[in-house]
Amino acid sequence: MTEKRFALKGICIYSKDREILEIKDGYVLCENGVSQGVFEALPEADSDIKCYDFSGKLIIPGLIDLHVHAPQYPIRGYGMDLELLAWLEKYIFPEEAKFSDLEYAEKVYGAFAEALLKSFTTRACVYGTIHTAAGLKLMDLLEETGLKTMVGKVNMNRNCPEALSEGEASEALEDTEKWLKASEGKYRNTQPILTPRFIPSCTDALLYGLGRLKVRYGVPYQSHLSENPSEIEWVKRLCPDSENYADAYARRGAFGPESKTVMAHCVYLNDEEIELLSEKEVFVAHCPESNINLASGIAPIRKYLSKGIHVGLGSDVAAGSTLNLFVAMRSAVQASKLYWRLLHSDEVPISMEEAFYLATKGGGAFFGRVGSFEKGYRFDAVVIDDSRLAADGTASQEMTVKERLERMMYLGDASCLASKFVDGILVR
Amino acid sequence: MTEKRFALKGICIYSKDREILEIKDGYVLCENGVSQGVFEALPEADSDIKCYDFSGKLIIPGLIDLHVHAPQYPIRGYGMDLELLAWLEKYIFPEEAKFSDLEYAEKVYGAFAEALLKSFTTRACVYGTIHTAAGLKLMDLLEETGLKTMVGKVNMNRNCPEALSEGEASEALEDTEKWLKASEGKYRNTQPILTPRFIPSCTDALLYGLGRLKVRYGVPYQSHLSENPSEIEWVKRLCPDSENYADAYARRGAFGPESKTVMAHCVYLNDEEIELLSEKEVFVAHCPESNINLASGIAPIRKYLSKGIHVGLGSDVAAGSTLNLFVAMRSAVQASKLYWRLLHSDEVPISMEEAFYLATKGGGAFFGRVGSFEKGYRFDAVVIDDSRLAADGTASQEMTVKERLERMMYLGDASCLASKFVDGILVR
Repeated sequence: MTEKRFALKGICIYSKDREILEIKDGYVLCENGVSQGVFEALPEADSDIKCYDFSGKLIIPGLIDLHVHAPQYPIRGYGMDLELLAWLEKYIFPEEAKFSDLEYAEKVYGAFAEALLKSFTTRACVYGTIHTAAGLKLMDLLEETGLKTMVGKVNMNRNCPEALSEGEASEALEDTEKWLKASEGKYRNTQPILTPRFIPSCTDALLYGLGRLKVRYGVPYQSHLSENPSEIEWVKRLCPDSENYADAYARRGAFGPESKTVMAHCVYLNDEEIELLSEKEVFVAHCPESNINLASGIAPIRKYLSKGIHVGLGSDVAAGSTLNLFVAMRSAVQASKLYWRLLHSDEVPISMEEAFYLATKGGGAFFGRVGSFEKGYRFDAVVIDDSRLAADGTASQEMTVKERLERMMYLGDASCLASKFVDGILVR
Repeated sequence: MTEKRFALKGICIYSKDREILEIKDGYVLCENGVSQGVFEALPEADSDIKCYDFSGKLIIPGLIDLHVHAPQYPIRGYGMDLELLAWLEKYIFPEEAKFSDLEYAEKVYGAFAEALLKSFTTRACVYGTIHTAAGLKLMDLLEETGLKTMVGKVNMNRNCPEALSEGEASEALEDTEKWLKASEGKYRNTQPILTPRFIPSCTDALLYGLGRLKVRYGVPYQSHLSENPSEIEWVKRLCPDSENYADAYARRGAFGPESKTVMAHCVYLNDEEIELLSEKEVFVAHCPESNINLASGIAPIRKYLSKGIHVGLGSDVAAGSTLNLFVAMRSAVQASKLYWRLLHSDEVPISMEEAFYLATKGGGAFFGRVGSFEKGYRFDAVVIDDSRLAADGTASQEMTVKERLERMMYLGDASCLASKFVDGILVR
């Protein structure tokens, strides 16, 4: 599909602001990959442009997955009986070690790329493994989908099985730089992102070196921060030089101004850490289902939003069970309700409108002007056919658009995807 | 299907006890609607009986839904923005009022019965509305499915809209007794259950009268108990004669020995209430998704189990979003993890094995010897085709049976139902 200018007709939904949905039955207009806004009727001058008719269907900005592990895709939805550190040892490291085998990697990453294409996601921050060849294969496969992704070769050189250790920091950094050079600018849709697994997995030499690569190449940076109490204690012991977990990353160059950084989880940040993330404009990838499944806890998202921190959602497969970000929206709402009820009655729950905002415009900002149909935003659009959900009930034909969108969060799955556009290109 | 004796071949899974799954690739044998146990090979004497070949598929006892509202089926999956009492006023009462229209009732209840048949549930405790004619229609429709259900005409005569009030207690009781007489013994699969909505909706005269009907007819009894803090405060004001919410029910005849009683939610029971429910052998219908969606809280199920209380699971549609009890299992695990993490580090989370037990043998006990393939249990069996979930990944063919079952809790939906037997009869 190469139309310079085209429109989608249907029920357009996007976030006016964090709390208000803009809903218009009409046309969303695209020119050169950029949204021109939503109109009740096509402007007269556009009466002859290509118009995809999705009348009655829901059209939303593409969903943004700020945190997902591609190699873990095959083992999602089970092994939910352990906390983070034991879970990594028992389930994750053995799985990731398999990716030294390029044939296995191609099979799994092929399935992952296909599933991501069939999901509601248009852009994602993706973790691979330490294996460069497998990682480049993942980038190749994701490139073909037309989805916009940032993909990380994972860095690890301590506290992990031999098979997953990159060894000396100098070697790891050399490999990482080679991978950066091999991948940066190679793709239209895919770009590298620096990806130390988390502080316990990386020596200081490796982390400081990655911080220098961040400055040199200006590429974005992702990692895990403050997910589990035992992990936090461990980092405290590993980084006696630092005030706290976030500060440990900051000192090691993770939050520099030269490029964006996203940190997954952030369940237990203290006030100083919140201040630091806000000041450095670090994004938080909120992964509520993962945080529940690994019994990590509940991240205080209301507080982060009130402090002006950028927040988006992550599926965090495989600690999260699904690539379906509607589940992440629902989980964000649910987790925030329990946080309010059980812990802090002054931090009101996240509304469904806010969860939608987080999954679109909130996370989208990590990719630029992304996550809205307002004029000037990159044209990512997902078309939803929820007739299966309506037919399944009886009074559903009387549902409002908002109710239909909310039901997608509780009952929708990938079978409801009707069509998907990324950056103005029809990809599905 | 009328075979006196037959077998199902496949991977049979049932709870040996609360913590241990019994898994056997073999045959589960049925005679006259009763399980004869699971065998690795068919006994020689049975070599010529009918055998349904479900090789490679999972065969589990039918799931038991101890708490579901049929009239709320059309409005599940949205309106999750309020707590219990406001939610009832805004969403539920207007919906339930529609069931004075028998045509509307037939349409909705038809869809509900069909969806329940297509679910993994074989037995359920079902709420209707106050409307007797619609309630009998619901019973007719459920009877046809072959599922075993207890169905309640709901009693309400205070603190509710005019359209949903039965008015004078004497009239309400007369109507209820007529309904009992009209329905008891009429069906093979369906039986009436006394169903006051909850104490705030029923005058004392009505509740005491229902207690007398319980004694006179020996029919089971269901209601809501201790779901939401505001509700609990309200009951305290409404029942100054009673020690607590559970005691208020007990005094009004809800927990008599003449028949079984199941109480939904039980989120905030104190020690005296726990003692009372344990002593009276009252069942708790744990509805974790509902309790999260309405921000009610988390029921301390670990404690209830340790006190010997009977616990089963409820979907609680429409505060729960789905009839799929695998979701209730997952939600029970998830809620218990947060309870452990956020509130009581000495109450260990519910394991997936325990959640499976609750959804089968735990709730099954409300229906007699139900919920297991052990010899002597009623033969309810659900056959699961999870190949869609396996194909969706890549390494899944290497999954263990336990992992496949656990994945059903996170990713399975009704499309995975291959076949269903209730009381020895093939219903789907």
